[in-house]
Amino acid sequence: MTKGLLISFEGPDGAGKTTVLERVLPSLQADLTANVLATREPGGIEIAERIREVILDVKHTRMDNKTELLLYMAARRQHMVEKIMPALTEGSLVLVDRFIDSSMAYQGYGRGLNKSAITWLNAYVTDERQPDLTLYFDVPAEVGLERITRNKKREINRLDLEELDMHQRVRQGYQELAQQNPERIRCIDATQPLDSVVTEVVEQILLLVKDS
Amino acid sequence: MTKGLLISFEGPDGAGKTTVLERVLPSLQADLTANVLATREPGGIEIAERIREVILDVKHTRMDNKTELLLYMAARRQHMVEKIMPALTEGSLVLVDRFIDSSMAYQGYGRGLNKSAITWLNAYVTDERQPDLTLYFDVPAEVGLERITRNKKREINRLDLEELDMHQRVRQGYQELAQQNPERIRCIDATQPLDSVVTEVVEQILLLVKDS
Repeated sequence: MTKGLLISFEGPDGAGKTTVLERVLPSLQADLTANVLATREPGGIEIAERIREVILDVKHTRMDNKTELLLYMAARRQHMVEKIMPALTEGSLVLVDRFIDSSMAYQGYGRGLNKSAITWLNAYVTDERQPDLTLYFDVPAEVGLERITRNKKREINRLDLEELDMHQRVRQGYQELAQQNPERIRCIDATQPLDSVVTEVVEQILLLVKDS
Repeated sequence: MTKGLLISFEGPDGAGKTTVLERVLPSLQADLTANVLATREPGGIEIAERIREVILDVKHTRMDNKTELLLYMAARRQHMVEKIMPALTEGSLVLVDRFIDSSMAYQGYGRGLNKSAITWLNAYVTDERQPDLTLYFDVPAEVGLERITRNKKREINRLDLEELDMHQRVRQGYQELAQQNPERIRCIDATQPLDSVVTEVVEQILLLVKDS
């Protein structure tokens, strides 16, 4: 078994996961003796980056849902093997922006793919290594979408063209996942002021580190 | 259910599958009233071609075996959805150069990945549509490899750099698959003269068409 701790940040687009992750990182690095690694798929891993390009290419509007799912899983596998697993083996605290629950929320609840197939694939690509803690940033779909649209720094990609309805199903998916996995998933109200969210996240992570 | 017939051509590299397929095609087109489609993954499907590029890139020597398998499965899925399924629905006879058994032979027997996982993935990407007939071109690994090396028209790619040992495991895999699926898989001695192989293949295919 690996010595490190794996924490995933989950939630709909615009929930603020990435901003919060950037904010909590220096605070954790100051407080902890362990190395802290922040990453996200495809994580700078060349093979995974190349796969991601295929997924996000705006021309690929005819991509089948199962094809898309398998490409995400392939990128996850390579990111896991090249980056996450080695860091966990070294005893690092690994913070990952989106992980297994994103596939279930987006491809399962969002696109309607068979959920047990997604569970199977997630287990296959991670060698059944689940996160020790998942922080789910909950925000109404309308709020998340509005935040993305206002964010000029971010280019519109194929996935943004999907409809609000899809985003609502994704949120429902995350909420059900949180209910089904109360030991692992903590729900965080991401409509709170950023400072409050950051404080809550740091507390949750330090609590996990202390307990393990 | 689809009306068409699906026939896969399988075997190690250098067994002559592709040459035989090109030779039998005009003869089948002359003899049959149904449309005949010859294809191979990625089959000119843009998404699948892009995935193939990632798999075959010589720089990607650190690609994990599960990543590679999932990429092949993603390409298979898209080729299936965009090309094979529509042709079968129209009642065509579809000849596919490599299909589900290649993953089992190469990634399962060759690279040692879990075989039940490959069976699961093959069923997932094909919606459980198996070939109506599989022609397996059997040739000793040494003979196949020698034929590839002499074929100057073909560029050496990452997969050719694998060792003879791997090719021997692949052959053993195909032979076991043929034994386990006697109803579906016909073993063809690919060391015979090309004309004899072509005659045998045309006979097998016409027999299948007549019986269905």
